[in-house]
Amino acid sequence: MAILVMKFGGTSVADLARIENAAKKVQAEVERGYRVIVIVSAMSGETNKLVGYVEGTSKLYDAREYDAVVAAGENVTAGLLALRLQEMEIPARSWQGWQVPINTTSAHSSARFISIPRANIDAKFAEGFKVAVVAGFQGVSAEGRITTLGRGGSDTTAVAFAAAFGAVRCDIYTDVDGVYTTDPRITKKARKLDRIAFEEMLELASLGAKVLQTRSVELAMRYKVRLRVLSSFEDTDENSGTLVCDEDEIMESKVVSGVAYSRDEAKMTLLKVEDRPGIAAAIFGPLAEAGINVDMIVQNISEFTSPGDAQAYTDMTFSLPTNQLDRARRAMEEAQDSGRIAYGDLVADIDVAKVSVVGIGMRSQVGVAAQMFAALARENVNIKVITTSEIKISVLIDRKYMELAVQALHDTFELDKA
Amino acid sequence: MAILVMKFGGTSVADLARIENAAKKVQAEVERGYRVIVIVSAMSGETNKLVGYVEGTSKLYDAREYDAVVAAGENVTAGLLALRLQEMEIPARSWQGWQVPINTTSAHSSARFISIPRANIDAKFAEGFKVAVVAGFQGVSAEGRITTLGRGGSDTTAVAFAAAFGAVRCDIYTDVDGVYTTDPRITKKARKLDRIAFEEMLELASLGAKVLQTRSVELAMRYKVRLRVLSSFEDTDENSGTLVCDEDEIMESKVVSGVAYSRDEAKMTLLKVEDRPGIAAAIFGPLAEAGINVDMIVQNISEFTSPGDAQAYTDMTFSLPTNQLDRARRAMEEAQDSGRIAYGDLVADIDVAKVSVVGIGMRSQVGVAAQMFAALARENVNIKVITTSEIKISVLIDRKYMELAVQALHDTFELDKA
Repeated sequence: MAILVMKFGGTSVADLARIENAAKKVQAEVERGYRVIVIVSAMSGETNKLVGYVEGTSKLYDAREYDAVVAAGENVTAGLLALRLQEMEIPARSWQGWQVPINTTSAHSSARFISIPRANIDAKFAEGFKVAVVAGFQGVSAEGRITTLGRGGSDTTAVAFAAAFGAVRCDIYTDVDGVYTTDPRITKKARKLDRIAFEEMLELASLGAKVLQTRSVELAMRYKVRLRVLSSFEDTDENSGTLVCDEDEIMESKVVSGVAYSRDEAKMTLLKVEDRPGIAAAIFGPLAEAGINVDMIVQNISEFTSPGDAQAYTDMTFSLPTNQLDRARRAMEEAQDSGRIAYGDLVADIDVAKVSVVGIGMRSQVGVAAQMFAALARENVNIKVITTSEIKISVLIDRKYMELAVQALHDTFELDKA
Repeated sequence: MAILVMKFGGTSVADLARIENAAKKVQAEVERGYRVIVIVSAMSGETNKLVGYVEGTSKLYDAREYDAVVAAGENVTAGLLALRLQEMEIPARSWQGWQVPINTTSAHSSARFISIPRANIDAKFAEGFKVAVVAGFQGVSAEGRITTLGRGGSDTTAVAFAAAFGAVRCDIYTDVDGVYTTDPRITKKARKLDRIAFEEMLELASLGAKVLQTRSVELAMRYKVRLRVLSSFEDTDENSGTLVCDEDEIMESKVVSGVAYSRDEAKMTLLKVEDRPGIAAAIFGPLAEAGINVDMIVQNISEFTSPGDAQAYTDMTFSLPTNQLDRARRAMEEAQDSGRIAYGDLVADIDVAKVSVVGIGMRSQVGVAAQMFAALARENVNIKVITTSEIKISVLIDRKYMELAVQALHDTFELDKA
């Protein structure tokens, strides 16, 4: 008895007609012979409404009560989808987090899974039930309180169930039809990928591709859960969408699989920083305390350092989200004032963007970076910061060149060709 | 540590401002020294919205899923009120049915209480919590499924908690400020009662006074829970509203406490029914099978019976809700066709109303019926059917005289005087 996990996000269950549409997709899988576990989000708008109620009631709210309130949306969808399936004569029932139980930590609003025992749902499958409809995004703590996993947690719930039940696959139904080589709004040459490796998806997700939550991809990679991203709003079959899988399953991998970008980047440079052991910690400590998401970091020897100087200086550059710039500046100035760090000047640039190429093929192929830099040079795009990982090269450039750079890289690596 | 139960209905928690208002009423009781158990309904409109979703999804819905969906509304209110109380620095937490647990039968959508163990809530009171906010209208079955008690079930939840926790009182906050001698829309002389006996309240509730659900009054009477009905929208103190209590607590009871009425009555008469043992069962059996709520029943000897007749006849008259008249007629005709009963003719009158006087004092006072009939005669109101119980006399009259009759009876029994 093969188990399939399916997940429908908020827009895919936004009203009764869409819930019926989701039910038909479940029916198709039941007819293919699967036992199906369906994870559902709240009808779109519901969770925001509930969050609004909580924030309107209490500023520093008790996260346990927040969770008890906002989890209500998923419970409603789960019941409705179960009813719709029953109406189609498919034996189905709904499961709330505490009924499974989905055991989590007590870290309310950002709980982590502890265990998902199979016994209760398996017993129902054995009785003849074909579908378990599970409320996503929620669980129960050891204290018997309702927990939630944080926004986007339904993807993670789906992957966790697929791991716990040894599912053949975890299908994430959403409002796009798969993962693309780049954003189709930037270039019409963008092509849907049939397959992509976990590591690549992880880089793309963390680079701002909003198809899947980073955390769900991490979990899928760890437990080798084959993830499929496909559209709720189109006819789909067993070959639709994009399969996110282990790289062993990808035969003819290209060197570069995709080009990602992020517009909301700012660059900050501390000039003439005293170069001594521990200086990086002294800078990034206060930034972390202020909740700044520092991304790329580059340290250069400072132009203020002259040969033979007793004191060496360094320049420290880092990127961060644009909307955190003021907070970061304040943190640095306070650190300077309190003597934790000393720097000559602080310069910020808010008109930057990050463009990245991602591909597991880079690991075995040299010259990808040179090819990337040459392509950008041909378009006269100046590179401000470079960082690399094993399967990714990112550059910070002027924001006005972002679309041009994405298009040039998409062409250079021939991503429009299968 | 005296425990007080408070219950807020849907209109009393309809939005965040009203939830804040409810929280202030809870705060006042905490400051009087009580540990408070608050039972809440869903924000008004929410349950109807959820019921609409269910009915839009499935015609013959699975009541277990219906319950799982519609119970969501109360969970939201419970969390929000707990948050509001915390904001006022009152230690409070929310409780969903399965967390208490509120153990019920598995009769989904009309579940009955089995037990409400005190241990979990008592433990929290012992830890320093002052308020337990409990989602009304719901419970959990032995199978671990969410159950609901049916509409109006939150009143019943409140009474059940008051009984289980030995509460000093159960305060039902609603949109009226108490129980009146009659409907103030019918006569301005209607007077709010300070106290009313359980039995009287029960008769008034079943006669259509919508202040309290019949079932909650029955439960209160059985467990001698002192119930108080009072307004959410007015300033209230310990003497506000109407106390529904054991008659021992009512010193100076009047003979008649209230006048009730029901407009939606119809009268049906079967003429020339063969008078034999079992004929009543033969008539009311088919009506019960058709789901007809027969109320008053009167059997007379038929005018078709002549002295010396071998066969005696009887006329059978009963009242029922207007909207069930067609169904009742069909049931009777089918019973006639199938030979279960035989009657000469069937006449129906839909322009009738029921007016009742209620009072525990009637038990020890004779002549109340005569006084009532005389009052109606003075106003030329013709009585069509009479029924009596130990503490109630009801008459069926032409609907056009209903208001006149209520006013006349209110005057006759001097209900405007305390």
